[in-house]
Amino acid sequence: MTETPHPLYATHADTLARALTAITERDYWSAYPESPSPRVYGEHAAADGQAAFQAYLGQDFPLGQVATGGDPIATERSPFGVDLGVRYPRAAADPLIAAAQAAMPAWRDAGAETRAGVCLEILARLHAHSFELANAVQFTTGQAFVMAFQAGATHALDRALEAIAYAYAEMTRHPHTATWEKAAGRGEPLRMTKTFHVVPRGVALVIGCNTFPTWNSYPGLFASLVTGNPVLVKPHPGAVLPLAITVRYARQVLAEAGFDANLVQLAAEAPQDRLATVLAERPEVRIIDFTGSTEYGDWLEANARQASVYTEKAGVNTVIVDSTDDFAGMCRNLAFSLALYSGQMCTTPQNLLVPAGGIDTDQGHKSLDEVADGIGAALGKMTGDPARAVEVTGAIVNDGVLSRLAEAAKLGEPVLESRELTHPAYPDATVRTPLLVKLDSAADDVYGREWFGPITFVVVTASTAQSVEIFRRTVGGCGALTAGVYSTDEQVLADVEAAALDVGVHLSANLTGGVFVNQSAAFSDFHASGANPAANAALTDGAYVAGRFRIVQSRRHV
Amino acid sequence: MTETPHPLYATHADTLARALTAITERDYWSAYPESPSPRVYGEHAAADGQAAFQAYLGQDFPLGQVATGGDPIATERSPFGVDLGVRYPRAAADPLIAAAQAAMPAWRDAGAETRAGVCLEILARLHAHSFELANAVQFTTGQAFVMAFQAGATHALDRALEAIAYAYAEMTRHPHTATWEKAAGRGEPLRMTKTFHVVPRGVALVIGCNTFPTWNSYPGLFASLVTGNPVLVKPHPGAVLPLAITVRYARQVLAEAGFDANLVQLAAEAPQDRLATVLAERPEVRIIDFTGSTEYGDWLEANARQASVYTEKAGVNTVIVDSTDDFAGMCRNLAFSLALYSGQMCTTPQNLLVPAGGIDTDQGHKSLDEVADGIGAALGKMTGDPARAVEVTGAIVNDGVLSRLAEAAKLGEPVLESRELTHPAYPDATVRTPLLVKLDSAADDVYGREWFGPITFVVVTASTAQSVEIFRRTVGGCGALTAGVYSTDEQVLADVEAAALDVGVHLSANLTGGVFVNQSAAFSDFHASGANPAANAALTDGAYVAGRFRIVQSRRHV
Repeated sequence: MTETPHPLYATHADTLARALTAITERDYWSAYPESPSPRVYGEHAAADGQAAFQAYLGQDFPLGQVATGGDPIATERSPFGVDLGVRYPRAAADPLIAAAQAAMPAWRDAGAETRAGVCLEILARLHAHSFELANAVQFTTGQAFVMAFQAGATHALDRALEAIAYAYAEMTRHPHTATWEKAAGRGEPLRMTKTFHVVPRGVALVIGCNTFPTWNSYPGLFASLVTGNPVLVKPHPGAVLPLAITVRYARQVLAEAGFDANLVQLAAEAPQDRLATVLAERPEVRIIDFTGSTEYGDWLEANARQASVYTEKAGVNTVIVDSTDDFAGMCRNLAFSLALYSGQMCTTPQNLLVPAGGIDTDQGHKSLDEVADGIGAALGKMTGDPARAVEVTGAIVNDGVLSRLAEAAKLGEPVLESRELTHPAYPDATVRTPLLVKLDSAADDVYGREWFGPITFVVVTASTAQSVEIFRRTVGGCGALTAGVYSTDEQVLADVEAAALDVGVHLSANLTGGVFVNQSAAFSDFHASGANPAANAALTDGAYVAGRFRIVQSRRHV
Repeated sequence: MTETPHPLYATHADTLARALTAITERDYWSAYPESPSPRVYGEHAAADGQAAFQAYLGQDFPLGQVATGGDPIATERSPFGVDLGVRYPRAAADPLIAAAQAAMPAWRDAGAETRAGVCLEILARLHAHSFELANAVQFTTGQAFVMAFQAGATHALDRALEAIAYAYAEMTRHPHTATWEKAAGRGEPLRMTKTFHVVPRGVALVIGCNTFPTWNSYPGLFASLVTGNPVLVKPHPGAVLPLAITVRYARQVLAEAGFDANLVQLAAEAPQDRLATVLAERPEVRIIDFTGSTEYGDWLEANARQASVYTEKAGVNTVIVDSTDDFAGMCRNLAFSLALYSGQMCTTPQNLLVPAGGIDTDQGHKSLDEVADGIGAALGKMTGDPARAVEVTGAIVNDGVLSRLAEAAKLGEPVLESRELTHPAYPDATVRTPLLVKLDSAADDVYGREWFGPITFVVVTASTAQSVEIFRRTVGGCGALTAGVYSTDEQVLADVEAAALDVGVHLSANLTGGVFVNQSAAFSDFHASGANPAANAALTDGAYVAGRFRIVQSRRHV
């Protein structure tokens, strides 16, 4: 069953080795440059990528995949008002699963080195199409271009590589064969050869989301694939193209390397098909990665009992504001975090807990209203010029966000109203600036749940001690992906860190510069912890990969 | 939160380092000598251990644990007919959980090194009481003494150490802190300090079994404890004493090291208390390790949704007999496997698949009946002298085994009847020799499920090809913990190995000497695979430990 590694393993061995170092150091490292500059990617890359994207529009997507679910479907509507009209094969569960299972044994028997080499070649291929991916992400999710390039392509590829590195380390921590020799009294020692096979769990399902179709899907996709499992990629009907492009190039590389392209299949559906649910309940499906609503994530955890289920759901990301030695920096930093992609990140802060008595700052004591207005003013400045604003805010991903925004405006005292902006390049784009609402600490029926979108609450607390208590209660009860604290008092920082450990949320302290609470860096920051209700797993650690395969051993006497 | 490691870490650092090497090599290694010889353990060890055991009989067990579940309980009945009468505190869920939770934060904050040092000291303490443990295992499970000493004490301690090593490796694969520095255009680079905290999941529950109370419980107990979780040890009502002794010494060491003894608590119950079920459904319980029936294991997996559940359940262990170059060795080896502890191991073969046309051997062709009789004769020889027999068979653990044995005798053509033996030392012991029954391959309603006890079926197949087909169907459908094959044909060996990979079961080929299919060696053999219905996890690998804690990170600018 052990074969010589495919030459692609040697091609990418250095990258893999560097990634393996990075995951043990958790220092800064990136394999895929995040700057879309022509100095990095070449003069034609941007135009070529855009052209490739545009060539897909209004066409049948060239996937080379059997489709038996009926007529092709076109389910996407761009937040930028661009007409997409890409048609995808409508998938059905039976043929997807049958094709996936047929592809599995040869992939399993190819061994960890070959699978890692092929997976890294897929990443290289996707990287070569970063601008194409970025356009697809931008026009399906509403992200501004630079963010779509980074979060949608290069950072997503870094996270994929990170997942592959963890999985490779896990698969190779044991030797493929070992010789066991045990003394046996005065006789000959007992001698055995033992072979440890890495075997996949079965068909893996990745369920993508509307806002980060690649970034949130790649870790699960590649962790499952590299450990030997065929993967069904079920995109959100609103953001199919980025994953269709991903599947297209993955299939290309797999076929070129001599494997069955059906190791990676697109499971596109019309919304009413409920394909995710159908697939999630199939006994052949043994691994599920999901990003999306708490409701559906909880349903998967409760019902897809035959599978290992990894979920990232909703939470109430919270920042405790106690004091700061850089008031302007704090306001700018928070404002950018709130405005970025119109708060449509699972990591955007929602609740800013500020004591009623205000806070001490480098500019003297600031009253509660001065703190709220400071953040509001920074937001106003950031979104004052529409042309600059839209490069931060992007566009609103779907109507659900708009209706939440309208509802939230009526819930408390507005600090800053949301405004409608006209996108200079895309007049039909749906653009809104962030809303900031002041709430009393008693209104936990409002701030105690997620308000996904450009909606932030300044929650007025009696004191920082009450802020910490609210933090424990809301994050402990509803979960969170991120948390922040601003304080010049080491004891407060320690108290909040202790609370963060108790409720299991990652904490950023005193961010006033170029790092934002909603950003996590691959190979260094863990995304989600798995230790609170917002997610049952982290991207990416040992627990995220170790259950995606099993070791089956055989032994015989030497 | 980082403290200087407790001195016990230095005390045991060499052992831990050696264990960490062993789990990467999976070669032969053992930390706790398996021979109960006075040359190894000293002249008085055996007598001292026996005296310590006898001192418990008829007494309140000295646990020093709060008990609020009512009057003490005495639920054990020895398979050897010895009157035990040990009374244990009857536990109740609320105080157990409250005490466990109170003990957790200091244990979490002590760090991986300290926790590993303390856990290894517990193992050392238990090792010093190996004979006491062995007596307790023998007289509750029915194992013969040497087996009780090995499986009940030294091998169990090896498995515990193995689990601790995996968990320690997993907790320390990331640095506790990292400095992250990222270039930021022409400005100063972004610099952050990141701290990665290992946080436990919550209260852990270990549900022990009647036959291997320590061996099957120690990996989960110590994997959970070393990763920071307080552990509730719920013994089988029929085999409380070995775990009570374990809990007693664990609490002693924890208290001596300055920690709350309630990090390990005994959850003894009267059978009607359903304490396992009550605890398993509590939201505070986040990890469950279980060994026992498929029924209850499946219930736990389906209902203890708030917890990570690791189960070892039942299966149909199968041996394919195709041909051999050592007929006598094969018969002896199989006979010992069947007789050992009266087939009451979860790893004992149940179904021997033999072609109707017989097999080729070094003694010429042997007909089906000659093969069956050969194994029967070896069994007969092994159990002919009661004094020698009982040192292999031990005693029958409970009445369920007796009634299954009576039922199985009527199911097919007997090759070898089960006999009642009188134990020379314990006249009230319940001793039975193994039963061998010949079944047609069509009788899969019989051999397609587990018959726990000294019950083996010789299943007559049309050919080895049909044997492989039956192997795939039964092991794939019902699961198995072990599988074996005898063949001189490399193609058959390869076919069976391919089938074993497909159905996810560990395979032993051509065992004719001193290694037996039902034995697995710590640090080398994986016990169970998690890849078939008999178990959802393996002892011990990365997947078994990685989900027992989470990483929670904090970051701030340097």
